[in-house]
Amino acid sequence: MNQDTICAIATAQGGAIGSIRVSGADAIRITSHIFTPAKSGKALADCKPYTLTFGKIHDGEEIIDEVLVSLFRAPHSYTGEDSTEITCHGSSYILQQVLQLLIKHGCRLAGPGEYTQRAFLNGKMDLSQAEAVADLIASSSAATHRLAMSQMRGGFSKELTELRNQLLHFTSLIELELDFSDHEELEFADRTELYRLADHIEGVISRLVHSFSVGNAIKNGVPVAIIGETNAGKSTLLNVLLNEDKAIVSDIHGTTRDVIEDTTNIGGITFRFIDTAGIRETNDTIESLGIERTFQKLEQAEIVLWMIDATDATSQMNQLSGQILPRLERKHLILVFNKSDLSGTAHSDEVLSAASSIIPDAECIFISAKKRQNTDVLQKKLIAAANLPTITQNDVIVTNARHYEALTHALEAIRRVQQGLANNLSGDFVAQDIRECIFHLSDIAGEVTNDMVLQNIFQHFCIGK
Amino acid sequence: MNQDTICAIATAQGGAIGSIRVSGADAIRITSHIFTPAKSGKALADCKPYTLTFGKIHDGEEIIDEVLVSLFRAPHSYTGEDSTEITCHGSSYILQQVLQLLIKHGCRLAGPGEYTQRAFLNGKMDLSQAEAVADLIASSSAATHRLAMSQMRGGFSKELTELRNQLLHFTSLIELELDFSDHEELEFADRTELYRLADHIEGVISRLVHSFSVGNAIKNGVPVAIIGETNAGKSTLLNVLLNEDKAIVSDIHGTTRDVIEDTTNIGGITFRFIDTAGIRETNDTIESLGIERTFQKLEQAEIVLWMIDATDATSQMNQLSGQILPRLERKHLILVFNKSDLSGTAHSDEVLSAASSIIPDAECIFISAKKRQNTDVLQKKLIAAANLPTITQNDVIVTNARHYEALTHALEAIRRVQQGLANNLSGDFVAQDIRECIFHLSDIAGEVTNDMVLQNIFQHFCIGK
Repeated sequence: MNQDTICAIATAQGGAIGSIRVSGADAIRITSHIFTPAKSGKALADCKPYTLTFGKIHDGEEIIDEVLVSLFRAPHSYTGEDSTEITCHGSSYILQQVLQLLIKHGCRLAGPGEYTQRAFLNGKMDLSQAEAVADLIASSSAATHRLAMSQMRGGFSKELTELRNQLLHFTSLIELELDFSDHEELEFADRTELYRLADHIEGVISRLVHSFSVGNAIKNGVPVAIIGETNAGKSTLLNVLLNEDKAIVSDIHGTTRDVIEDTTNIGGITFRFIDTAGIRETNDTIESLGIERTFQKLEQAEIVLWMIDATDATSQMNQLSGQILPRLERKHLILVFNKSDLSGTAHSDEVLSAASSIIPDAECIFISAKKRQNTDVLQKKLIAAANLPTITQNDVIVTNARHYEALTHALEAIRRVQQGLANNLSGDFVAQDIRECIFHLSDIAGEVTNDMVLQNIFQHFCIGK
Repeated sequence: MNQDTICAIATAQGGAIGSIRVSGADAIRITSHIFTPAKSGKALADCKPYTLTFGKIHDGEEIIDEVLVSLFRAPHSYTGEDSTEITCHGSSYILQQVLQLLIKHGCRLAGPGEYTQRAFLNGKMDLSQAEAVADLIASSSAATHRLAMSQMRGGFSKELTELRNQLLHFTSLIELELDFSDHEELEFADRTELYRLADHIEGVISRLVHSFSVGNAIKNGVPVAIIGETNAGKSTLLNVLLNEDKAIVSDIHGTTRDVIEDTTNIGGITFRFIDTAGIRETNDTIESLGIERTFQKLEQAEIVLWMIDATDATSQMNQLSGQILPRLERKHLILVFNKSDLSGTAHSDEVLSAASSIIPDAECIFISAKKRQNTDVLQKKLIAAANLPTITQNDVIVTNARHYEALTHALEAIRRVQQGLANNLSGDFVAQDIRECIFHLSDIAGEVTNDMVLQNIFQHFCIGK
């Protein structure tokens, strides 16, 4: 483990105040070098932990700032190491000067997530809790916040650790049997009890694996594809749906999502709009390729809004139904007849009957995207189609792709255990599968995780956390 | 004075951690409502000042975040009031939730600069020190930082307060004389000593008033006008000068300066380039008006770079010298012959001799802006022309326009006092001018400042400071 004392600016640039974190064996000594308490005779090194000291940061004779220094001592700090936090005036010039002074006196600039990585390595939290710290900082809605908070406070990793310990107990018993394998009939591990445990674990993991689609939808947004011919009004509708949310979009300005302009929050649910090109009949090979890609993007969607020009509905439905309908398996389709202000009510009945002849029981809505007629009803349909449960802080939901992968492997292993037990397989086969299940469960809490995996996890953190 | 308990997010959005400040009589009580310390049995209200407490912010059953709360008690806090500071994970969602909770429990959202305003009103700092807090936060170079730090630590306001107190002593003596005005020859106030004091004060204030041009240049940049015909290469040169500094420009991205792209730091000195339109001969009335404005802008400049196409030098100098030369009083002119790569060395001598026939002892330089030839020498010439002294933290320099104005008025008043004493004017006239001088000196420290002035000062602060 790296024993450097690290430092980093932990606050964003531009506020009234800014904070610099110092952590490591030399944190207090190095901070003392550049800090003079206002009260004479007081030394930082003599201060009690969890206290604040007012004073000056100086570079030789020159005073850099008047600051407050918070002091923490191992193991009672975020990282589990000796730590200080220097709260300065929020000038980036001052923060940089203080940082440079710390480095001059022996600190190293922290890497992304290095504080949280140290907290993990020092046993202050398990890996899934550490991962939740990044999710918590990135949380931008009540739902993502609740999920991250639940995970940071232990979440499902506690439950999994308990189950894993029970499995460990059984493997040791089975391995004991193997040592006595001359006595064929000897069974230390009660097979009925093991079977019951495997069943229980299968149930828990299976529930967690299934929660991932909900967790993923909450964290990354419910994927919605708007598809249709070029003149059907796709972009007008998209603008209407995104505009509803201007305040929220500007709220998370500065976060690093790739296509922030295509994510919106409707009724507390995040929807992620998949960019699709407009479709028109063409003989041009290149454009046909583009259209093919559009249809492929339907794969990613959970909800498909098929935009149809109401004034040209029958023709548009006939043209595209052959390509759209085969791609809708397990997707929620809504037919959106746009420009309803330009077509009469009588015409609507005709359109609906044409629609139901192509797609029986089709969910249809008439709107005018341009005049914002009925778009609120469409939003309600989107919320209903998302079909997300209301999340509380006690709900156990997997949002992390790494956890999902580990759980999927653990689920396969525990199912092999169940089968093995049902087929009366010999102890060593069963033990092998149990060990594999234990391995994957341990992976989530970071107990068997290697350096490369850790690096991959923490490099996505911001510096200073 | 407003007795509300105020709260605000004091850090910028997007960091690893974020801080919320609460200040006022109810700060600790309100924070206690939403905060539960991790150690059971511990109450925030029982904590000692200058301590940190780890725990949870909760809204009823729902946990918002795990935080550290710093506690301060009146008068030993920034504002002089009871205060807490809540350090959360840096999610804007979490910060907003905590802020809303505080407001729900009785806090009011702080206005811009309200913490510092309270610090001023509670006598923690005088007004010029309070103003320096904003300068300190905005400081982006060693020089602006030193000036702000010097001012925040008392700077010249201490010296002025001392002088003002001596003046106060004399007015009271003179006013005593007026009470005994029947006895003409009675002089409680020693005129010789008063004359000496007035001389001394005149010297101090005069020095401060003159320091403003330096202070202003350091704070806002030395104003430089690049003037010349449209084809002379003005914008190429400007780009070269600004490009040298790309890192620093992006460093202060997000600050609120208006034309950040035209300010650059060369050798530690900030230069502010005044935008001028290119000049060409024209019969068009509208364009002529634009050119007239360009010449007027020369007024603001301290340094004038006259860009001349070296391949067409004599003609360009003859065309514009009539309009440029009369406007150069107290400005530093540098003739910049551009495109020197296209004109020969022999030609250079010819150009120089033409230049000296128009402007004797003209400072000339040949460059190629496009090929960046000799532009480093031009930068050195700019630094020399700026003629700024090296600032130390002990230098007393006025950077604030409000202080400059007050000092100018005080200077006029003290000079009238000097004249009055020299002319043996009666005590009541002299006393009137002394009182006026005292008034303006008091104004700087904020001792006579009215609410409107205060509002005007603090509205330019950021919220949370």
